[in-house]
Amino acid sequence: MQTPIKPNRPRAREIGIQIGNLPTGELNGIIDVPGVKVGHVTRIAGEGSLSPGNGPIRTGVTAILPHDSNIFREKVTATAHIINAFGKSIGLPQLLELGNIETPILLTGTLNVWTAADALVDYVSAQNPGVYSFNPIVGECNDSFLNDILGRHVQREHVFEALETATHTNVEEGVVGAGVGMSGFGWKAGIGTASRVVHVEGTAYTVGVLVLTNTGAVSDLRIDGFPVGQHLTPEESSEERPGSIMIIVATDAPLSHRQLTRVARRATFGLARTGAVASHGSGDFVIAFSTTNRIGTSPPEGGGSLSTFHDESALTFLFRAVIEATEESIINSLLKAHTVVGRDGNVRYGIPIHRIVEILGIQPPETPPWDE
Amino acid sequence: MQTPIKPNRPRAREIGIQIGNLPTGELNGIIDVPGVKVGHVTRIAGEGSLSPGNGPIRTGVTAILPHDSNIFREKVTATAHIINAFGKSIGLPQLLELGNIETPILLTGTLNVWTAADALVDYVSAQNPGVYSFNPIVGECNDSFLNDILGRHVQREHVFEALETATHTNVEEGVVGAGVGMSGFGWKAGIGTASRVVHVEGTAYTVGVLVLTNTGAVSDLRIDGFPVGQHLTPEESSEERPGSIMIIVATDAPLSHRQLTRVARRATFGLARTGAVASHGSGDFVIAFSTTNRIGTSPPEGGGSLSTFHDESALTFLFRAVIEATEESIINSLLKAHTVVGRDGNVRYGIPIHRIVEILGIQPPETPPWDE
Amino acid sequence: MQTPIKPNRPRAREIGIQIGNLPTGELNGIIDVPGVKVGHVTRIAGEGSLSPGNGPIRTGVTAILPHDSNIFREKVTATAHIINAFGKSIGLPQLLELGNIETPILLTGTLNVWTAADALVDYVSAQNPGVYSFNPIVGECNDSFLNDILGRHVQREHVFEALETATHTNVEEGVVGAGVGMSGFGWKAGIGTASRVVHVEGTAYTVGVLVLTNTGAVSDLRIDGFPVGQHLTPEESSEERPGSIMIIVATDAPLSHRQLTRVARRATFGLARTGAVASHGSGDFVIAFSTTNRIGTSPPEGGGSLSTFHDESALTFLFRAVIEATEESIINSLLKAHTVVGRDGNVRYGIPIHRIVEILGIQPPETPPWDE
Amino acid sequence: MQTPIKPNRPRAREIGIQIGNLPTGELNGIIDVPGVKVGHVTRIAGEGSLSPGNGPIRTGVTAILPHDSNIFREKVTATAHIINAFGKSIGLPQLLELGNIETPILLTGTLNVWTAADALVDYVSAQNPGVYSFNPIVGECNDSFLNDILGRHVQREHVFEALETATHTNVEEGVVGAGVGMSGFGWKAGIGTASRVVHVEGTAYTVGVLVLTNTGAVSDLRIDGFPVGQHLTPEESSEERPGSIMIIVATDAPLSHRQLTRVARRATFGLARTGAVASHGSGDFVIAFSTTNRIGTSPPEGGGSLSTFHDESALTFLFRAVIEATEESIINSLLKAHTVVGRDGNVRYGIPIHRIVEILGIQPPETPPWDE
Repeated sequence: MQTPIKPNRPRAREIGIQIGNLPTGELNGIIDVPGVKVGHVTRIAGEGSLSPGNGPIRTGVTAILPHDSNIFREKVTATAHIINAFGKSIGLPQLLELGNIETPILLTGTLNVWTAADALVDYVSAQNPGVYSFNPIVGECNDSFLNDILGRHVQREHVFEALETATHTNVEEGVVGAGVGMSGFGWKAGIGTASRVVHVEGTAYTVGVLVLTNTGAVSDLRIDGFPVGQHLTPEESSEERPGSIMIIVATDAPLSHRQLTRVARRATFGLARTGAVASHGSGDFVIAFSTTNRIGTSPPEGGGSLSTFHDESALTFLFRAVIEATEESIINSLLKAHTVVGRDGNVRYGIPIHRIVEILGIQPPETPPWDE
Repeated sequence: MQTPIKPNRPRAREIGIQIGNLPTGELNGIIDVPGVKVGHVTRIAGEGSLSPGNGPIRTGVTAILPHDSNIFREKVTATAHIINAFGKSIGLPQLLELGNIETPILLTGTLNVWTAADALVDYVSAQNPGVYSFNPIVGECNDSFLNDILGRHVQREHVFEALETATHTNVEEGVVGAGVGMSGFGWKAGIGTASRVVHVEGTAYTVGVLVLTNTGAVSDLRIDGFPVGQHLTPEESSEERPGSIMIIVATDAPLSHRQLTRVARRATFGLARTGAVASHGSGDFVIAFSTTNRIGTSPPEGGGSLSTFHDESALTFLFRAVIEATEESIINSLLKAHTVVGRDGNVRYGIPIHRIVEILGIQPPETPPWDE
Repeated sequence: MQTPIKPNRPRAREIGIQIGNLPTGELNGIIDVPGVKVGHVTRIAGEGSLSPGNGPIRTGVTAILPHDSNIFREKVTATAHIINAFGKSIGLPQLLELGNIETPILLTGTLNVWTAADALVDYVSAQNPGVYSFNPIVGECNDSFLNDILGRHVQREHVFEALETATHTNVEEGVVGAGVGMSGFGWKAGIGTASRVVHVEGTAYTVGVLVLTNTGAVSDLRIDGFPVGQHLTPEESSEERPGSIMIIVATDAPLSHRQLTRVARRATFGLARTGAVASHGSGDFVIAFSTTNRIGTSPPEGGGSLSTFHDESALTFLFRAVIEATEESIINSLLKAHTVVGRDGNVRYGIPIHRIVEILGIQPPETPPWDE
Repeated sequence: MQTPIKPNRPRAREIGIQIGNLPTGELNGIIDVPGVKVGHVTRIAGEGSLSPGNGPIRTGVTAILPHDSNIFREKVTATAHIINAFGKSIGLPQLLELGNIETPILLTGTLNVWTAADALVDYVSAQNPGVYSFNPIVGECNDSFLNDILGRHVQREHVFEALETATHTNVEEGVVGAGVGMSGFGWKAGIGTASRVVHVEGTAYTVGVLVLTNTGAVSDLRIDGFPVGQHLTPEESSEERPGSIMIIVATDAPLSHRQLTRVARRATFGLARTGAVASHGSGDFVIAFSTTNRIGTSPPEGGGSLSTFHDESALTFLFRAVIEATEESIINSLLKAHTVVGRDGNVRYGIPIHRIVEILGIQPPETPPWDE
């Protein structure tokens, strides 16, 4: 069996699955947050038996850039929330101490993280001569079921390419970038994204989420609450892995580090609603940033000031936004992911769309605009 | 309108709602964990306008005892997990430092907590003459919508009564003990409980949960994933409050403090599955204890030893147990709670069972064994 | 032996002990932070054998008010840092979640904390009719060596008196308020205070500290680095207790919760420099607040804005200030505390000033202006 | 000026400086903890102007191995404590979640950490075929004042060499391994180590510490409490850097993760006693492990059991041990470090031993057995 040609698969809303009640941003992706860019480099090569160092390669890297300017010179307020830390994420201690991010964020396969971080330092260093300290942020999930993970096939040039090709309109999902080798709820999974718009004190703010899904047991899957995993199982039962998930949250709401931390913690609720349990072996991390109220490398003249919300006026709205966007991102990361055959012939099947439609009792369009 | 005579209302399983897949303990309550006792004192008195200090009284206190012996002399391994800390829980810093609980746990209305803690010290002090330091554990939710909360109507004698009347078979739920004045998802709520049994390395262990529910917006309610809150609204729209929830987790699995902390964090997943969002103003706390591997007040002769699990052999099973038992406890805390009229004529309606049955498409028994 | 009449004892600077290099505030106390008030109620009564409930009484309560206005309506940015949590401090979870304090802070003997918290709610509630939720902040150390601790001799009226008699100029130290029954490094100890002034971006800011010292082993005591405890031991060796310390930090620097947390953590360094080790049984807590950038009970119209510092321009200066002020406060809490005879004839001796002067090689004034 | 030939410099005890009261282990180093091994690779090459990528090279890597066996197969109980997280340490989230370390620990210069982590995965992976997930532990300080830090001159082979040449008797200190390019209190610093022996319930246990010192302002230095930094300043005033410190704590005491965390937090006290303030820009981390009670990769048959201490019987003794050993390690890391000339002719002077002796009023041996 070979990985099929990349088919046209739908997002949740394209087949009538509507998670929650809040309106989405224009493209329903993390890039709806003004300034945010996303880039993916997909690494697929080789077939057959695993030969560590040689392939088959089923991996990639995804870059999320908080804004267009020099991120080191205009750091963004940030936080992290750890749901279950069986994972190798890089850069979180300094992020939590200083409450900011000073590099783009990378996502990739587990054993690529150190090379990716080193390459990210090259990238930021080139933009900032004379600086000798950088805190790269890299998250990961384990793609060893499909990929030659020990081969660490994401190299410096792939990191640079992901950073340099990132765009403000990228809503690619599924088998792309860091998502190439990932699985979720026993099915092929990968990248997913979604966004929500909330109004606080009369102004609209966007919350965008991008997930790298690699978690969940087959029978646990719920879509908008319905226990799909009790009704649908992959043709071939394949080894379950403990899995992991990386959840990146972006917003233009002017939150303090403390407030953003409260928001980030709600991503857990979105994850829980998909049926995931954050098993012992999963590395489930939330990294969140606000693009407003940037922090320079040195103190501004005349002191600084931050625009802020009162917790009461804003936070519950933002909680709902991050919960809904996280849940929808995860569902998108499954629906958009087609079947992939990896190392040693290991297969992860794309979840069958027609069966989802059937199980959920959705009235499909007469001519479904997707392949399976 | 007056509070009706306490009707016979069903638990989730009695109307065919089955949360999750794991088997329950014998009574499906926290008291299935061997040794655990529960006692409630219910304080209902007066009608009409609020007269702070005089009533009407709609409050109470619930006591959870980890075992039958002197708890100060045989402390139990314990932890806490804070979901959202807009709450006044007492005793958590020391609990987290030492990893144990040395008194029973009390739950009550918000402004009763300090009096209840002081009374709990009296209770434990009487059992342990010559000791001058105790760390009472008290959790709370805010019952001010129905109750004269400033009156602090839980006094020393009510605490003692709850402790002294606690039993190994108490599965009372709904409008009882600390639950008297609480609301959930816009309906009357209160105490709920459930349990699960898991097998680890060939031995059966029980995870029991007891919740004090006072959280959730009307439209958010989900029962086993189904968005009931989108279909069912109280007759009279009544003020929504931010609310809170206390989740008490007990187990006889021999967990270390670190492992128990990992388990306690999964209660968030059970909460999320009911549709709750842990709004800004909620005080959502998990307190968990293991009745095995007790800690004496002084070092044992010859050193100590703990039986333990390997994380991998036990934790994911226990995660599932606490998620299922938390979700079911919350649903029970709603189903079992009948309509209560409180101060100033404020009403919280018991969620109508026949409508739940209808909405969920459950085939009800011909002669339903419950009133509404 | 009886407790001597309260003698005139010196602060550190009055005998030439200068901790650190930063200038002090005008009165060298926490009340140098504009707006901060301190009040003490001292409870001393009875002699002889312990009769639980009847005395002897050697306890008290200390109130710290962040400003003159209604603190619930103008909450102050706040944080807490836990050095070692064998202690019963009240209110910390909500303080950490919301990043503010909405009541005055009380310090007292361990078993008084719940009564004191309840009284504090009465006090704040009377100022804020119609509010049904308050988060009182109370810290404690254990005064059972000298005091009838089970008697809980700090009652509602003492709390009110401490709050109502608090002033902007109170630098009373030693055997006063919550300090009455406390010990430090085997000597009598109690309340101590100090302050420092730092300049950030051209503006002067004050950091004030008030400690309640009840910690330290005899031989560990260091004064400005010199191992005094290796040279000086109380006449009668008396039982050592594990002890505790409460460290209250105030500043008018406009810090965010995150920044204030970083500052609060440095109090540990000041504690360490006195020789303390934060033994297993100690309850060592830091509570810090900034009087600037207050938070109202509801969102301000037109959104809010905070003046802030860049971490780099301010924090290291503030770290030094809190370290120095904490160290000096602890030394003051010893030097100012005279001998007290307590329950069962237990004695804690005031550390002999002439011996300190001798050991440190300080040239004393010809006519020392203090008694011993 | 050139870096002098490596002189013979003394440790603290060799010139009569005795930190604390507890006895040391046999070699007074972290390797006194049975099984622990230390290896250093020192990278010194080139002179003159900085040419990023080409040198001059003043860096290195230090490896600490918890025991002789396969560490992945016999993980050791571990924890981390973050004093100030302006640093890039790798592996801490998983370490804290699982409470163990599964690889050796590496220390190196800041920008080498990702390459070092990747090399460490190679090393551990070669020992454990078929495993696809590893959590390498790497700590760092910033050696950019002397070193071509952007050149990242610690490569895979240097990591392997440090691991493979590690021994049970290595007490090399100063300008060695990761310490090559580091500074402390304005002087040359680097690696330091010390140990203490405590008795718990009749058995002797060792606490060993190894530090990588790169922190402290000139005027802050205290040696055994004496303010040496007020009396001694480098000949040429040279730029001060914010600095950092890595503190590795090892013990054979059978501590749980929770207990070990309490012990690790006390390293802050040892650091504080040297005068350090953990400035805004410092990355001050403690990583601690216990070599007893190892954790296999899969559950043991028949369940497991841990020998443990009661907190009260052991912890305060271990607190004192870690405080003393940390303080002495830092002093050793200064005393043993000779003058180094680095990139762009930057110089860090070895602290002059004869001046220390003079200032502290120590009677030196007639023929001092050290060079300066």
